[in-house]
Amino acid sequence: MSRLSEQINDRAIELGKLSVRMTTAAGSGHPSSALGLAHIVSVLMYHQMRWNPKDPWNVNNDRLVLSEGHAVPIIYAALCDMGAVAGKSKAEAIKLKIDDVDSLRELESVLDGHPNPAEGMPFFDAATGSLGQGLSVGAGLALAARKSKIDKNIYVICGDGESREGQIWEAADFIVDHKILNLCAIFNCNGQAQADYVSPQQSSKTLAEKFKAFGMEVAVIDGHNPEAIVEALARTGKTAKPYVVVAVTQKGWAVEELKDKSNHGKPLSAEKAERAYIELEDQREVLNLPEKVDCSDFKPTRPPEPHFHFAPPKGKLGDPIFDDLLLGDGFMKSWQEKHKMASRRAYGLALRDLAKLDERIVALDGDVSNSTFSEYLKKEAPEKFFECKIAEQNMVSAAAGMAAGGYIPFVSTFGKFFARAYDQIEMAMISRANIKLVGSHIGVTLAADGPSQMGLVDMAFFRGLGGPCEQGRPMVVIFNPADAVCAYKCVQLAADWKGMVYIRTMRPDMPLLYQPNETFEVGGTKLLREGDDLLIVATGYMVFEALKAAEKLKSDGIDAAVMDAYSLPVDAESIIEAAVKSGSKILTLEDNYIGGLSSAVAEICAVVGEIRVHSLTVPVVPKSGRTPDELLTYCRISQADILIAANAFVEL
Amino acid sequence: MSRLSEQINDRAIELGKLSVRMTTAAGSGHPSSALGLAHIVSVLMYHQMRWNPKDPWNVNNDRLVLSEGHAVPIIYAALCDMGAVAGKSKAEAIKLKIDDVDSLRELESVLDGHPNPAEGMPFFDAATGSLGQGLSVGAGLALAARKSKIDKNIYVICGDGESREGQIWEAADFIVDHKILNLCAIFNCNGQAQADYVSPQQSSKTLAEKFKAFGMEVAVIDGHNPEAIVEALARTGKTAKPYVVVAVTQKGWAVEELKDKSNHGKPLSAEKAERAYIELEDQREVLNLPEKVDCSDFKPTRPPEPHFHFAPPKGKLGDPIFDDLLLGDGFMKSWQEKHKMASRRAYGLALRDLAKLDERIVALDGDVSNSTFSEYLKKEAPEKFFECKIAEQNMVSAAAGMAAGGYIPFVSTFGKFFARAYDQIEMAMISRANIKLVGSHIGVTLAADGPSQMGLVDMAFFRGLGGPCEQGRPMVVIFNPADAVCAYKCVQLAADWKGMVYIRTMRPDMPLLYQPNETFEVGGTKLLREGDDLLIVATGYMVFEALKAAEKLKSDGIDAAVMDAYSLPVDAESIIEAAVKSGSKILTLEDNYIGGLSSAVAEICAVVGEIRVHSLTVPVVPKSGRTPDELLTYCRISQADILIAANAFVEL
Repeated sequence: MSRLSEQINDRAIELGKLSVRMTTAAGSGHPSSALGLAHIVSVLMYHQMRWNPKDPWNVNNDRLVLSEGHAVPIIYAALCDMGAVAGKSKAEAIKLKIDDVDSLRELESVLDGHPNPAEGMPFFDAATGSLGQGLSVGAGLALAARKSKIDKNIYVICGDGESREGQIWEAADFIVDHKILNLCAIFNCNGQAQADYVSPQQSSKTLAEKFKAFGMEVAVIDGHNPEAIVEALARTGKTAKPYVVVAVTQKGWAVEELKDKSNHGKPLSAEKAERAYIELEDQREVLNLPEKVDCSDFKPTRPPEPHFHFAPPKGKLGDPIFDDLLLGDGFMKSWQEKHKMASRRAYGLALRDLAKLDERIVALDGDVSNSTFSEYLKKEAPEKFFECKIAEQNMVSAAAGMAAGGYIPFVSTFGKFFARAYDQIEMAMISRANIKLVGSHIGVTLAADGPSQMGLVDMAFFRGLGGPCEQGRPMVVIFNPADAVCAYKCVQLAADWKGMVYIRTMRPDMPLLYQPNETFEVGGTKLLREGDDLLIVATGYMVFEALKAAEKLKSDGIDAAVMDAYSLPVDAESIIEAAVKSGSKILTLEDNYIGGLSSAVAEICAVVGEIRVHSLTVPVVPKSGRTPDELLTYCRISQADILIAANAFVEL
Repeated sequence: MSRLSEQINDRAIELGKLSVRMTTAAGSGHPSSALGLAHIVSVLMYHQMRWNPKDPWNVNNDRLVLSEGHAVPIIYAALCDMGAVAGKSKAEAIKLKIDDVDSLRELESVLDGHPNPAEGMPFFDAATGSLGQGLSVGAGLALAARKSKIDKNIYVICGDGESREGQIWEAADFIVDHKILNLCAIFNCNGQAQADYVSPQQSSKTLAEKFKAFGMEVAVIDGHNPEAIVEALARTGKTAKPYVVVAVTQKGWAVEELKDKSNHGKPLSAEKAERAYIELEDQREVLNLPEKVDCSDFKPTRPPEPHFHFAPPKGKLGDPIFDDLLLGDGFMKSWQEKHKMASRRAYGLALRDLAKLDERIVALDGDVSNSTFSEYLKKEAPEKFFECKIAEQNMVSAAAGMAAGGYIPFVSTFGKFFARAYDQIEMAMISRANIKLVGSHIGVTLAADGPSQMGLVDMAFFRGLGGPCEQGRPMVVIFNPADAVCAYKCVQLAADWKGMVYIRTMRPDMPLLYQPNETFEVGGTKLLREGDDLLIVATGYMVFEALKAAEKLKSDGIDAAVMDAYSLPVDAESIIEAAVKSGSKILTLEDNYIGGLSSAVAEICAVVGEIRVHSLTVPVVPKSGRTPDELLTYCRISQADILIAANAFVEL
């Protein structure tokens, strides 16, 4: 056996012991999955990856994404063993020690239950644990590295069971389409899942056949054979086709108790852990290791110098002069005739312009760039545009990967179709990924296409996901612009906001509500009209309806104020202040199901208790209709409905 | 050419003309996609499928799932051409006429923009339009038919572009695992998507290779060749392996204007439509058709008799006597010692027992049946349990298919992992699918595993999705039981509720709150304790915390009432009534992000305006901790937090 193999086996044994120790200390966790990766992780982290354990923030480091996040003890073991640095920032950097393994899953520990960069583990780029997402994140990291011309490789470890998730295959298509070669996807085939054995559909043999059919180069190896692992991983970046290593492993390697399929997520008792240490130690004899293996030089190579940096932004988006922005555009004629524009088009124009000012801006779209209008960027700067085809899950996770690589990805599809990736979006939020999601065709005004294409539950979801805060900042900011000016300006606000942003854009061409020099802010509102009797708070399309209604209410003798709540979480003070001036009655209007603006305003007012709130939301499941107005009527949020509601409310 | 081929070509031309006509009339829709399916749909609906156009509700009918829902005009054309029956129920049955095509996408029309059984098109089982879901629905329908021993086949038409969706590959694995042979998956390979050409990854050749690697039998055919289509479809149900037909088609077949990739979703102008009719008519010469093709006998074969019926339920679940229910169970000892039980375990016991009483009850689980405790059913009646492995999207859509086949599927995984399928869940809601979703391990009390495994945004999502109503009934009912008795009883309530139900279950073993004979109801609340100063409304785990807090508040001189809001949408009257008796102050407690109980109560009270509401929700992104109490403290919903909030609120 070579010296390298001895070192690998030696570390596999030691990391295995630490994995058992930490899960026993925590009283939970997955030592069995960890042990199956003992050799692979030893090769990766001590030998194959070029990285600096003292500087996990170095963007030039090779990266490892642990898609099967529950196996994380084996990574923590290596990090503690090599004295790697962790912490939420360089200012708070700590050097891990062996005994830190005992803090696994403690409230104060950086060793969270699953990989979690946000809790002080910068070795990771993405929170994982919800399965099947890591390969997409890795693809995004690899694309970012290639785009930044950094000579670095990305490694992803996936479980065989998790390769049942369709997203794995979306990622495979994406990797092949984009010819991503600086990535090695390692599939850990231990044949066991949680409730049962892995299906034959996810056997090492079937997986290899599938990946070949998907157009990838596949190596099948023994995942406990150091030479085989070293050789297979050394081919990363050198294959003609995207590369997959299918590694056959033993779950619970070397520890009898943990090999049985009933022990997926079970730590050992203290007593059984002692027995496990002996079994692992016994491997020295089985593997014919010398009494003492010198690992002092078993250390990763440092990444290349110098560190990559982005150029600072050249400026900010100015005020939109659509006549200039549309020069040479097919829409110009319509614009100049009607002076109406869909917010989605304004988004596309802003995206195109912002990308000229800030080299971090990139766009991803799921085969609907001619609907979301991200095609404005695609046409002008195709190298900043990443077509993801009809695979929203991969799109969102890949964007999170690109964000971890320093880019600011604007991700667009129909608002409805983001629901396909709500789990990925939540994981990106947990990772604190700096991504901007732009959902078009939202609300019932999409009309003809029907409910399968309408964003209706998006406001409830993103408001819920954005509920938690960090240092006073919500985890998700929502923009729901009514007009093209607001939409245009929200793009700069989104880019400037560090964290997740969701922008809703509409299909219909609408008149402008604002002058090009109007200013907007996160959580801001615009009081568009004052009135003594009632405050109508509306968002998106319904702002226009609110203004129309206020005009008509005048003839009923009702003086209604109108506020545009274009951003959530909405500023409570401005709402309460305006409501108090308007008879302490608020009527909210929105084009989606409950859980959005109506809930936000109700929550604000229920705290105070003196302001009454009535809300019109979409109270039925919509169907197709030929015009937005037909749908407003069907969904009981038409002008007539607003007038009836307002009159009844004021009379109360 | 055979007479059959002549008839197929003849109908393809006529259905093509109708597809053009209806989209031109609607001013929107996808005639190009429709035309590419003209021959395939003619063979399917007039020849291959055994079904009764006069009785689309007949459960013995072969079924067609149009996964690429935007191609629906070609189906509507056939239905109108053959005078098929439509309508929301047999009582409202209408016979479609040719001229009905002109009503496409009208508000009053049953011809919705995308397939939508709920709007009066019983030919379909599932709303489609959000792509990649139909194959899973078809798999569920096929499983239901097989389980009911109905001799029927399911056909699914998918687009090539949509086969990029990972769910297609989840469905393929599921179909192979379950050896589903009464299903034919047809892939419509026209090479064009919306924004661009389809990737080579979704070419007919690559798709064929992929499906073979997935273990399926694949036929590649010319999708405009009648003989080839007839021959390929005739093999349905006769192959040794699950069957896929890859059909190479021409998008916009026969109509030059519609062949270009820029015309994905564009109807023709009236003028261009006239030109299209001529081009389609010209196909008679191209195809060498006789002047007049007699199609009077070109009609589908009727399905076999007699119609399948389920036996009526043998009764209802009784009161849970856990000592009896746990006989022979490993948990018995712990139960008898501590008298604590997790709500998830009570769910499993109820599921097992209900399945004995009602043959429609089946369960689907995603490799976590030993955590959700659906394994109680799996062990006792494996034929009623469908393992879906780690692929939640397919699981939910397949359950929707089984529901369309008359079953009542209980679908379980971690509450967090349902987020993976929120789009599928929304489509199932649009379809009015009678499915029950059981999300375990919800809330922050999961503790050690961290946020990647916790259901935190689920309340906001399901409350939003359940916002719309039909005949006064919410589209989704949520149960969030605090204890095992309530959880057990909610299972019967869920089965009895026609429509979607979401049940949240918890990981920790908790004491019982209720006697076995307690009764519960949809939207119900339980006033557990009266008090003059404050009403604490809590749900799930937090009910226990509320009771503890109320006890402690007594010593602060505060008399707090406690209400268990175990079901949403929550009954407004009971809350207002209780609040008025308790100082018109409500403190809400829940273990998830905003958008759940707190919003529901705030909305109820803001309408009235005289009740003040303060809420404790999870205000930060959780991390791992070793105990539920640690997490409650980290998330500022601990006893101490509740007491501080209650004291401050009462003093206001």
